[in-house]
Amino acid sequence: MDIEKILKEINFDNLVPVIIQDKNSLRVLMLGYMNKEAFIKTLETKKVHFYSRSRKKLWLKGETSGNFLNVENIFLDCDSDTLLIIATQQGNATCHTGRVSCFFRKLEDEWKTIE
Amino acid sequence: MDIEKILKEINFDNLVPVIIQDKNSLRVLMLGYMNKEAFIKTLETKKVHFYSRSRKKLWLKGETSGNFLNVENIFLDCDSDTLLIIATQQGNATCHTGRVSCFFRKLEDEWKTIE
Repeated sequence: MDIEKILKEINFDNLVPVIIQDKNSLRVLMLGYMNKEAFIKTLETKKVHFYSRSRKKLWLKGETSGNFLNVENIFLDCDSDTLLIIATQQGNATCHTGRVSCFFRKLEDEWKTIE
Repeated sequence: MDIEKILKEINFDNLVPVIIQDKNSLRVLMLGYMNKEAFIKTLETKKVHFYSRSRKKLWLKGETSGNFLNVENIFLDCDSDTLLIIATQQGNATCHTGRVSCFFRKLEDEWKTIE
């Protein structure tokens, strides 16, 4: 695997949004952001790493909770500025609130918490 | 439906990334961005509208191709700064390249076009 060649196709001018989709349920679990370092760490370890915009540093997803995201497949979009990662959850929560997915508010007449 | 109340829960300080997932296949089709105007238009018409960052204006997805995205459900994430829209495709392509999904490059030893 030629990492330099792989990196060259991704536009890292801005932080790259990364959609995480569960391999089994196909639920969308969360959206995070990567810089080049987070992407390389993710490739090396097969565990999703993000760049934390609030803490301004590399963040191994699950480093405190143990809820790691194990990488199964990675896709790049047509504009080369968004990634989709198919992952399996190690643990049963991706959201910091303890829920499976961060997308737990559904628009009905107003935003309703669905789980 | 109290639009002002709905809007107030979404953080529009930056453009809001919006993940589009196909209702039937559950494939992730694309990621676009909304400002408040695009979100309101999407609610009003039940067709996905984005804010085009390159053209710097409101963009009805499908306005030239006819490949509209019909809104089925809308979810908001825990941080209130990302949306997930479950949609049905009117037409059989979401990507401007004519493919179903914008995520058609898969990482193997290098990026491989899978369809």
